[in-house]
Amino acid sequence: MQYHVNGELVPAESATVNVADRGFQYGDAAFETLRAYGGTLFEWDAHLERLRGTCRKLGMPDVIPADLKERVEETLEANDLEDAYVRMSITRGQQPGALTPQPEVDPTVVILVKELPRAGIEGERRWDGPARVKLVDTRRNDPAAIPPDLKTHNYLNGILARLDLRNEDGTVDADDAILLDGDGYVAEATTANVFFVEDGVLHTPSLDGPILAGVTRGTVLELAEKLGIPVETGQYLPDRLATADELFLTNTTGEVWPIGQLDDETFPVGPVTRDLQEAYDEMIEALY
Amino acid sequence: MQYHVNGELVPAESATVNVADRGFQYGDAAFETLRAYGGTLFEWDAHLERLRGTCRKLGMPDVIPADLKERVEETLEANDLEDAYVRMSITRGQQPGALTPQPEVDPTVVILVKELPRAGIEGERRWDGPARVKLVDTRRNDPAAIPPDLKTHNYLNGILARLDLRNEDGTVDADDAILLDGDGYVAEATTANVFFVEDGVLHTPSLDGPILAGVTRGTVLELAEKLGIPVETGQYLPDRLATADELFLTNTTGEVWPIGQLDDETFPVGPVTRDLQEAYDEMIEALY
Repeated sequence: MQYHVNGELVPAESATVNVADRGFQYGDAAFETLRAYGGTLFEWDAHLERLRGTCRKLGMPDVIPADLKERVEETLEANDLEDAYVRMSITRGQQPGALTPQPEVDPTVVILVKELPRAGIEGERRWDGPARVKLVDTRRNDPAAIPPDLKTHNYLNGILARLDLRNEDGTVDADDAILLDGDGYVAEATTANVFFVEDGVLHTPSLDGPILAGVTRGTVLELAEKLGIPVETGQYLPDRLATADELFLTNTTGEVWPIGQLDDETFPVGPVTRDLQEAYDEMIEALY
Repeated sequence: MQYHVNGELVPAESATVNVADRGFQYGDAAFETLRAYGGTLFEWDAHLERLRGTCRKLGMPDVIPADLKERVEETLEANDLEDAYVRMSITRGQQPGALTPQPEVDPTVVILVKELPRAGIEGERRWDGPARVKLVDTRRNDPAAIPPDLKTHNYLNGILARLDLRNEDGTVDADDAILLDGDGYVAEATTANVFFVEDGVLHTPSLDGPILAGVTRGTVLELAEKLGIPVETGQYLPDRLATADELFLTNTTGEVWPIGQLDDETFPVGPVTRDLQEAYDEMIEALY
């Protein structure tokens, strides 16, 4: 496997960053995860725009290399991958002084890829079966402390939520954790947005809360509109999830992932979820 | 300069971590900063204990190498340093799977050192003059999302607070930012605890709030007790800072750092601050 570091392809085992890099020292780095389907970078523009937004809010508006897309494509080609997971990160690099970010940035640009089998109508899912999720005690970050629309290498909040899933013997029998916001409303899973269906209406927490505007979330809302599925966004207490007819997660790698279990409640893969999955698969198929 | 990475001394420019290391990908790493005075690692036990606490709360209780202190000393010797800044980091290393931490950890252990001139009675300060600080809009992390006693590579909250200090032309004319907690009470600076003096009484936010239990904070409270300075800890609104007689910051590298300016208010270096500085300097001098 070869990764891309600062403009060069390097073998994965020697793809490194210096320990003085702010990306390592402070998690001071923006990133995006995306998928390539049949060699096409899905929703490239949306991911690039969000990456630009993160970099701008981190006070480093001009760090994205003009040839970023070419670097990603070069990395996929070097690894002979058409169906892949892609993670692209831009750190603030090394700077003089301590914590205060300096305006002059010499960024570190890292692209990692991994094979992710063909998706679409006859493709494989990233997951084996419906997701098992749990509501955890760790709350989502306060947006006044860490705004939800920053996709950075600071993942401690999500890691603590995943650690909440750990049993005493060290095992974990859940795929993701669902976090509430500081006021007790459903926010999101650690790396996915949450949807539920109630009496045929699709619901998902609105972006007024500490929610990442997931690219897949946006795609699914568009597909629902096309399919004539009524949609409501808002603030929801967790009991709405427990009593819902259907539940699912969305993110770039998992696409539309039905939730089969939330704590002790089990859920079927219902008709709205199946319709949205089918529409998603058809959309992906069109990229091949 | 030589750093210490995974048990080996390496030149600083080739001291690296792999881009797949969770310390880089997620800031999934515990760390401590300490000072060596005349070759003595100041408050080693307190820093080691806090590092153990962070690692335990990160679900990796057994990652601290038994010879960590020897590694630090070896690094200082290799660089011929007796008076130094030391940063020691332990990451969760590389793991299979995605975000969920696995119980089996092969940690990455990194030690960085930098010269920091002799302190003590006739020594140098780390800073040139009293600190200029500003109250910023970014709030301290919600302890239900990210507990304040975890010292990790997730520094986004502090970085955003430091970015709040940035003027439109990119300059920064403050040394640190003071953050309030979610309820509007004074929490701490991004890398220091805050103290103020009012009518001869020393005040600092109590550890009930989202405050790091700073090692220097603890030392200063002990010194105040020895000097007979009355101490109160509690929750304080920011106007208490603005109307205080004296203000100062404490942390490992800055020791007792008087605040000369808070937003538009200026402050003298008052008698309580001077007494505490003197007591601190004498304590350090005893280490030489």
